[in-house]
Amino acid sequence: MNIFVCLSLTDSQLESLQMAVEHHKLRFYPDVETNPEAKLAFNECEVVFGNPPASWLCENIGLRWMQLESVGFGEYAGIDWHVLEERLQVSNLAGFFSEPVAESILAGILSLYRGIGRLAVFQTQNTWVGDAFRPGLRTLKNANVVLFGKGDVNRRVGELLVPFDCTVTSFGREWMADGLRSALARSDIVVCTVPDSPSTRGVFDRDLIGSIKQGGIFVNFGRGSLVDENALVEAVEAGRLSGAVIDVTKEEPLPRDHQFWKYANIILTQHTGGGTGDEIDNKIDFFLTNLNLYLSGKSPRSIVDFRKAL
Amino acid sequence: MNIFVCLSLTDSQLESLQMAVEHHKLRFYPDVETNPEAKLAFNECEVVFGNPPASWLCENIGLRWMQLESVGFGEYAGIDWHVLEERLQVSNLAGFFSEPVAESILAGILSLYRGIGRLAVFQTQNTWVGDAFRPGLRTLKNANVVLFGKGDVNRRVGELLVPFDCTVTSFGREWMADGLRSALARSDIVVCTVPDSPSTRGVFDRDLIGSIKQGGIFVNFGRGSLVDENALVEAVEAGRLSGAVIDVTKEEPLPRDHQFWKYANIILTQHTGGGTGDEIDNKIDFFLTNLNLYLSGKSPRSIVDFRKAL
Repeated sequence: MNIFVCLSLTDSQLESLQMAVEHHKLRFYPDVETNPEAKLAFNECEVVFGNPPASWLCENIGLRWMQLESVGFGEYAGIDWHVLEERLQVSNLAGFFSEPVAESILAGILSLYRGIGRLAVFQTQNTWVGDAFRPGLRTLKNANVVLFGKGDVNRRVGELLVPFDCTVTSFGREWMADGLRSALARSDIVVCTVPDSPSTRGVFDRDLIGSIKQGGIFVNFGRGSLVDENALVEAVEAGRLSGAVIDVTKEEPLPRDHQFWKYANIILTQHTGGGTGDEIDNKIDFFLTNLNLYLSGKSPRSIVDFRKAL
Repeated sequence: MNIFVCLSLTDSQLESLQMAVEHHKLRFYPDVETNPEAKLAFNECEVVFGNPPASWLCENIGLRWMQLESVGFGEYAGIDWHVLEERLQVSNLAGFFSEPVAESILAGILSLYRGIGRLAVFQTQNTWVGDAFRPGLRTLKNANVVLFGKGDVNRRVGELLVPFDCTVTSFGREWMADGLRSALARSDIVVCTVPDSPSTRGVFDRDLIGSIKQGGIFVNFGRGSLVDENALVEAVEAGRLSGAVIDVTKEEPLPRDHQFWKYANIILTQHTGGGTGDEIDNKIDFFLTNLNLYLSGKSPRSIVDFRKAL
């Protein structure tokens, strides 16, 4: 069996993956987007490990199972899954990143409240600000928090917030639920962790951003498509919001002239929220466990139900 | 009655303090260290609000109560309190800063683990590091933590760590307790929040720093006198420790040529750990409540027992 592998691996990671899959043949194209031979190889594979271009999926009629290296699957939303789901199952990494992402979210919020990012910049200039800096600091205790998204990440964020005695209100699939606006109007912090899908795109438009409490902060670790980035910048610029923590942006890498770079009270974590030193090894382990299920005729874990999800 | 006030106040804070103390006379010297008239005024006061020079205390024989604007009182350790405590009682702000300091401690630790400080510096250069940055990140979950100091701050740190399922070992007054070295040898994180006193000075010398687990991080929000700063820098430089979070230093403001500035994995919070926007107002409230107790012949809250404490 041919397995198409299109995530970045070191030589030793590739080697151990090859040993683990024994006689199955790895077709390794980390440069899937640019290598002209990649698509030919892809079409000969029954299994994929990684996120290949969405436009390739329909053409490979022998493709049976695809293990994404992400939780998100929005790039495959445009496909007619009513047909494709008959022959192809897709699993994602649901839950895989919830600990690091939730910790990055809390790190970002506390860094805004306790000034860590701005102090890091003063440090590069050997500049002591000391006492003069203290009045701009806040504490998280007793804050009002809206969790937008009810997946693993926000569930974990809710756990991490428990000792801070925050008032937490959660919103799930019904993104535009009654009560969202009134909750936002009370919220010191809005934490968004929802996937990209037709129903989430552009939800935080100028109007909804404007309904967040004066001085609140906006946190986005889902996908950049959720939010009107210009409206967000304007709200921060005007002081309507006191800051933001942004892991995901519409365009990644973020263009050098994007407004987000400019603001010390917009903490940019550059889509590193899920990162850990053992991340790739753990992804390989996840794939191999699912591969064993697949080879023994069982269903891999974390199958995406596209018709329900999108 | 004359009240000597030597902390920084805005005009409106001073005004509201004057209104609250009614007919009592405020002698306001925020520039206590440099104003040549300050000492004369000090000697005419029965009550002090703020931290005047230690050498002044014995001379003012009419001084009865001093409300410090800090938790720490190490600068008054050289005084013979066996005599002075007969006529002067001193109260500090015990517990006052525990929430902001504990939050700054967690903010600093999470920022090291999730790379927030370094990302803030990349942001000033409009530089996307993204995926390449992820392998250097870690999570706090299940870490081994030593809390050095059993006061209000570390008690609160312990509470904030609960959802991270850390293994926490605390050490109190017996700084050099059996078990400290073996606990340090297992510790990913050492959090120090002890006051300056003859028994804490220099405790974290080169030898004790060397006993911390390889790759651990050292966090100091007590007083700078606790630690051999050169030995700490060398341990970070050599990679023996993976980082530090430092709020307090031997010299403050930190000299411009100090080694601490140089390291992106030493997070310098510049003695802002206790800061909040309403800090001064809350200090005034604390003083006024204690003043009412004092004026009605009762003991103010948070009296320091120097003979026991030092």
